[in-house]
Amino acid sequence: MQPKPHIVHLPVYQPGKPIEDVKRELGLDEVIKLASNENPYGSSPKVLKAIQQEFANISVYPDGSAVALTQALAKQTGLKEEQFIYGCGSDEIIALITRAFLLPGEESIMADQTFSVYKSNVEIEGAVAVEVPLRDGVHDLDAMLAQINDRTKIIWICNPNNPTGTIVPEAELIAFLDQVPKHVMVVLDEAYAEFVTDRSYPDGIRLLSAYENLVVLRTFSKIYGLASLRIGYGMGAESTIRLINQVREPFNTSRVAQAAAIAALEDQEFVRECRDRNAEGIAYLQNELERLGLESFPAHGNFIMLDVRRPSGEVFQELLRKGVIIRAGHHKYPTYIRVSVGSQPQNELFIRALEQVLGAEAAKVRL
Amino acid sequence: MQPKPHIVHLPVYQPGKPIEDVKRELGLDEVIKLASNENPYGSSPKVLKAIQQEFANISVYPDGSAVALTQALAKQTGLKEEQFIYGCGSDEIIALITRAFLLPGEESIMADQTFSVYKSNVEIEGAVAVEVPLRDGVHDLDAMLAQINDRTKIIWICNPNNPTGTIVPEAELIAFLDQVPKHVMVVLDEAYAEFVTDRSYPDGIRLLSAYENLVVLRTFSKIYGLASLRIGYGMGAESTIRLINQVREPFNTSRVAQAAAIAALEDQEFVRECRDRNAEGIAYLQNELERLGLESFPAHGNFIMLDVRRPSGEVFQELLRKGVIIRAGHHKYPTYIRVSVGSQPQNELFIRALEQVLGAEAAKVRL
Repeated sequence: MQPKPHIVHLPVYQPGKPIEDVKRELGLDEVIKLASNENPYGSSPKVLKAIQQEFANISVYPDGSAVALTQALAKQTGLKEEQFIYGCGSDEIIALITRAFLLPGEESIMADQTFSVYKSNVEIEGAVAVEVPLRDGVHDLDAMLAQINDRTKIIWICNPNNPTGTIVPEAELIAFLDQVPKHVMVVLDEAYAEFVTDRSYPDGIRLLSAYENLVVLRTFSKIYGLASLRIGYGMGAESTIRLINQVREPFNTSRVAQAAAIAALEDQEFVRECRDRNAEGIAYLQNELERLGLESFPAHGNFIMLDVRRPSGEVFQELLRKGVIIRAGHHKYPTYIRVSVGSQPQNELFIRALEQVLGAEAAKVRL
Repeated sequence: MQPKPHIVHLPVYQPGKPIEDVKRELGLDEVIKLASNENPYGSSPKVLKAIQQEFANISVYPDGSAVALTQALAKQTGLKEEQFIYGCGSDEIIALITRAFLLPGEESIMADQTFSVYKSNVEIEGAVAVEVPLRDGVHDLDAMLAQINDRTKIIWICNPNNPTGTIVPEAELIAFLDQVPKHVMVVLDEAYAEFVTDRSYPDGIRLLSAYENLVVLRTFSKIYGLASLRIGYGMGAESTIRLINQVREPFNTSRVAQAAAIAALEDQEFVRECRDRNAEGIAYLQNELERLGLESFPAHGNFIMLDVRRPSGEVFQELLRKGVIIRAGHHKYPTYIRVSVGSQPQNELFIRALEQVLGAEAAKVRL
């Protein structure tokens, strides 16, 4: 049976090693995972109560339209209820957008080092991923504009960018949006928005009323701490959301995820506390990296990308043996690793392990 | 922004009315929903414990490969671990299969009244749905074979068929599979398999070793009672599953769904009890329909499709006003309704309501 020709080359997903496996294989008592930008403080205690309240309805299909969650988000954002769509994480919304809009041979512009799900979904549709080099780890909006042509359908801006952590400031984003033709969709992926404290950072939701062709993605997987439940949301013009909905399966988010998301949204005190602790973690890590003489990109999400000045795969393996799982293998940055901001003890453990790994290497070089 | 031309005509999903809304709008104290083939007995009590054990990990991404669930299913079925794929219900696996395999202009054969998700996904891919009339509510396998040509990519067999509830017996299915060319995929959707008590019913999983081009779908939404958690599974040749996996988002089932599925699988006593009670419910309903002089298709799932000899939309509305939500609007069977087998009190309530609705109509006709 012949598959679509353009899916055959796609890489097969390589699952991360579970912590328990790493412990057993390496004989370690403690292993910390700073590889998936999860919330080290869990989720709001209100979330667990909300999940338990759904226990009587486990066998009943969820509300396919997520009406209650939509009412909560409409109230929070000031948008209309018809402007929301949900997915199994924002991953699925990315897939739905490409499935609804991209035809084979059309083009989609993105950074050359960004969230990999854009490119894979563009290619599944037989469309062409036009990858524009980051400049100092930041989206190069002018270079992206220069790539627009008649075949361009979608532009992806990840803000803060995963994995570099950099942001596009508001003034530049607005200047960019003003120049994008109306027939080209701009998807602004704000998965890490709630962590950002920089005052130049734009709130994509507030830009929606000015740009009909803008779609903003958010998620409950990051600061809200619901990664295991799989729920993210997209916002855009009613007409755009209606079209994306036409390729959505009716029941694509679970009952517990919807209930948990509503409870998580209500607990903005938890969100503030996580943002504050994350900012402290970034400050600590940046200080330590400076002390170690290591360069890193300005970090605006809950992760830092730093240059270890060695092949990142080697450093990954050596950190793993010390019980710290991080992310390596970023094709445009072969000597960089990405580490999630953990709790303070986790951050200290990471720095200690990094210092040992790089120190040993430095010693090796001096021999 | 122009969407794919072939998605524009697709119907927008119309969500069912929540029970609470029906109660309020119609001033009813009790409303029962027999519209979605859910399990009236909920799920195994072991499921809730399994979900609670995941509470410490709500903020942590699920195992994208569902290794523990796969081990449990491999043990139960005797298949290899590489033969499984998971989705947000079997709905998502249907979408993934079409996204991995169908090119615009290719053809996909299905019954003219079957699970609607096959056709919508075929059309999203720009492929052609070739709909073959059911014969007496049963898949007409010979007529389906006659439709195969060089453009045929996938054939869908829903067994038991939703909405008619009929089954294709083993001997006929094997004769059919023997004649389907090897380059054509046959997807056997067995969402209701665990309810079937008829001895002629084939177990698709046991046929997998003989037919490389066969894919079998099962779900935890029906007899296992996990509809709210969104998890289904597909099984096939390793090479086929690998290709479908290439268009799957890495984390498409939740941590709680995976844990609940493992617990549900372990409690086969619950499954047996649900199957027995469902069989009793079918026997009761068929007796009552006979008493009322109403014809129905042989019911092998947890639902019955019956001829109310009036436009089904009217009967839907009248049953709704009596507090019973059923399914109507099956385009090839305009006078039929589909009702889920509920608990005994629910079944009795349905029969009483149906008798009143049709009796009143009969009286009207006599005037």
